[in-house]
Amino acid sequence: MKQSLLFTKTKKEIPKDEESINARFLIRSGFIDKLMAGVYTFLPLGFRVLKKIENIIREEIKNLGAQEILMPSLHPKQNWQETGRWDTLDSLIKFATFYTKNEYALGPTHEEIVSPLMKNYIFSYKDLPTAVFQIQNKFRDEKRAKSGLLRGREFLMKDLYSFHKNEEELKEYYEKAKSVYAKIFEKIGLGDKTFLTFASGGTFSKYSHEFQTVSSAGEDVIYVCDNPERKRSASHGAGCKIAVNKEIINEQPECPQCGNKNLREEKAIEIGNIFELKTKYSTPFNLNYKDENGLEKEVIMGCYGIGLNRIMGTVVETYHDEKGIIWPKSIAPFSIHLINLKPDADFADRVYNNLQSRGIEVLYDDRKDITAGEKFADSDLIGIPLRAVISDKTEGKIEIKNRNETETKLINIDDIEKFVNNK
Amino acid sequence: MKQSLLFTKTKKEIPKDEESINARFLIRSGFIDKLMAGVYTFLPLGFRVLKKIENIIREEIKNLGAQEILMPSLHPKQNWQETGRWDTLDSLIKFATFYTKNEYALGPTHEEIVSPLMKNYIFSYKDLPTAVFQIQNKFRDEKRAKSGLLRGREFLMKDLYSFHKNEEELKEYYEKAKSVYAKIFEKIGLGDKTFLTFASGGTFSKYSHEFQTVSSAGEDVIYVCDNPERKRSASHGAGCKIAVNKEIINEQPECPQCGNKNLREEKAIEIGNIFELKTKYSTPFNLNYKDENGLEKEVIMGCYGIGLNRIMGTVVETYHDEKGIIWPKSIAPFSIHLINLKPDADFADRVYNNLQSRGIEVLYDDRKDITAGEKFADSDLIGIPLRAVISDKTEGKIEIKNRNETETKLINIDDIEKFVNNK
Repeated sequence: MKQSLLFTKTKKEIPKDEESINARFLIRSGFIDKLMAGVYTFLPLGFRVLKKIENIIREEIKNLGAQEILMPSLHPKQNWQETGRWDTLDSLIKFATFYTKNEYALGPTHEEIVSPLMKNYIFSYKDLPTAVFQIQNKFRDEKRAKSGLLRGREFLMKDLYSFHKNEEELKEYYEKAKSVYAKIFEKIGLGDKTFLTFASGGTFSKYSHEFQTVSSAGEDVIYVCDNPERKRSASHGAGCKIAVNKEIINEQPECPQCGNKNLREEKAIEIGNIFELKTKYSTPFNLNYKDENGLEKEVIMGCYGIGLNRIMGTVVETYHDEKGIIWPKSIAPFSIHLINLKPDADFADRVYNNLQSRGIEVLYDDRKDITAGEKFADSDLIGIPLRAVISDKTEGKIEIKNRNETETKLINIDDIEKFVNNK
Repeated sequence: MKQSLLFTKTKKEIPKDEESINARFLIRSGFIDKLMAGVYTFLPLGFRVLKKIENIIREEIKNLGAQEILMPSLHPKQNWQETGRWDTLDSLIKFATFYTKNEYALGPTHEEIVSPLMKNYIFSYKDLPTAVFQIQNKFRDEKRAKSGLLRGREFLMKDLYSFHKNEEELKEYYEKAKSVYAKIFEKIGLGDKTFLTFASGGTFSKYSHEFQTVSSAGEDVIYVCDNPERKRSASHGAGCKIAVNKEIINEQPECPQCGNKNLREEKAIEIGNIFELKTKYSTPFNLNYKDENGLEKEVIMGCYGIGLNRIMGTVVETYHDEKGIIWPKSIAPFSIHLINLKPDADFADRVYNNLQSRGIEVLYDDRKDITAGEKFADSDLIGIPLRAVISDKTEGKIEIKNRNETETKLINIDDIEKFVNNK
């Protein structure tokens, strides 16, 4: 895409009402716009990142045999009364419309919708196991929404629900989901800093699990197992989450998996969670099935969430320097930022068209009347992984540099693809 | 996809609380599920159709140079007060949350959001023209939501907003949008029955334009120009919309374009609309730009909507018979419905894998213990354009049939692709 056509522009001013690093950089670089506290518009660059995160999640979740659906945001009061959560869930946005006086909730999660939905399709043991997921908008009545994309009033989630004959079948699926989650976070570039943690307070099992990314912007405290034989990663690391929202509710100095001592990581961001719901929602909605002997049994459920906005915010909190964002290649809005500093555009246009024809996603800074310094500053702020500069000095070649390095190289046009694919 | 794994099943019963053909067929065949009046879940088959409609629209809208964004559903009261529509738009879902007591509207359209947004990025004549679009969820406080996907309380829209220096520039873009819209409806299979109509009551221009599909399920009345030299289609036909909601407000027997007499089409469904907004929203939000002489001028706007749910509903109203839906190829959930009637699955599995490897989207009815009659009935109900049957009678060949024809043909596996691409 030609940058001269991009309607957004970078901003020099730091947004006054934003404290978080992710919101400051994402707003300044034109990825998002703030409509009000906790509610953001995704602009073209941000929309591209969002779609890449979405596609990575979708591809991996499909490996769990889950079928994609799209449930509504507008929920009838009755469904939330069935489970009692109409009255108990503080963050539920619930209201009566001024005109028709209908009472609704705006879905913060979809157990109250998916359980009665599946009642239409699950009858017998032959219909199990099955799983559905969606990538859809969620709403929360947050009292304080001040962490940019980390804690929103409106945000996109991937929510997956699985349905089983018994707890063994759920456990097997749950373990698969764990490893698919680890793979997703690895692909997104958060693998090294993300830990599978045990969260206390799982209502129906001893622990639920959260995927926590260590970050100074985090609001949670986790303990990470210090066993040197365990690789610290989302797939292998055993973090032991003890406290949420800075309030330590239970010191747990030993890893419940291996008994080894834990290291306290002061701050972490929850980017995914998985729960064994068991019969918590099948009971109120009478979601039952007939087993091999014709006996009526309750369906056993699991649920699995990932927050897309929160992922984007966490990536920015994790990968930036004082100049701007440093996107991981897998979710960068473009693979390469081509910058023309020559007075004429002939060579740069040719390079741009060449890259486009090879299917390489390129943002082409073709703007005139902008200084080299401004173009470099914009490029650092936007944070595309690879920068390619064409100037009078490069003499028919291209000066290439990774966003997170200082070393530049002069290369021929035919070598660009190698760099795009390598880093 | 193997049909045995599809969690939805077809239903024999007609949904009691649904009057409309589209909802009856879409629910019975497992494309959608009704959560409450006017609010539906898209199930795997319906989700696939939705994505196909979305992709056709996205591809064509990009030809208008519009950049994709994603605006929120939750709108602050203040934005709607700026334009006065907080008080005047009956169908606006507005509420105070029970918990934080914040007052919000749920967006039924996004002029109140996009206009102040663009104020951050439009400063000079150099920033114009520009255009943004989104494919996003909308909400309306419908008193009566009884027409299935045709009139919902929650529904997906493509909304495009264009920004211009002057009315000539808007007009030029508006004409391009008209032809892009016509192409979209042609691709979706509604071209023959859809007319570009003049709607009275455009606030700032003599006429706004609506794209109306003639259908017995329609709630509007249109007059279609009977000039035999004009092809009756979305791109060429000149319908003259006179009345909405069956209440004729102005008989107009002559076509305003050619003076020829008009034919009354009793019922039509509005599937798209385009408006010259001019300064209606730039005025309240002070959306201005500096022209070549440094003079401050108001930005001239246009807006352009297409309802995705309504398109899906209209297609079903248009293309069905007594047995079920007949999807146009371009938006069918699968290209081919492969049905195995043999006791063993060896040959059918091979055909399925062969088609999959060639990238052909196939729903494979591999279910056992289901009679041939039931499989055919399901196939007719679901409405995939091409049906391929493997049975003991077909002797190593495949019996192929179009959904909308009765004639069958025995063909070799290598000839299937030809049929998929032809029809």
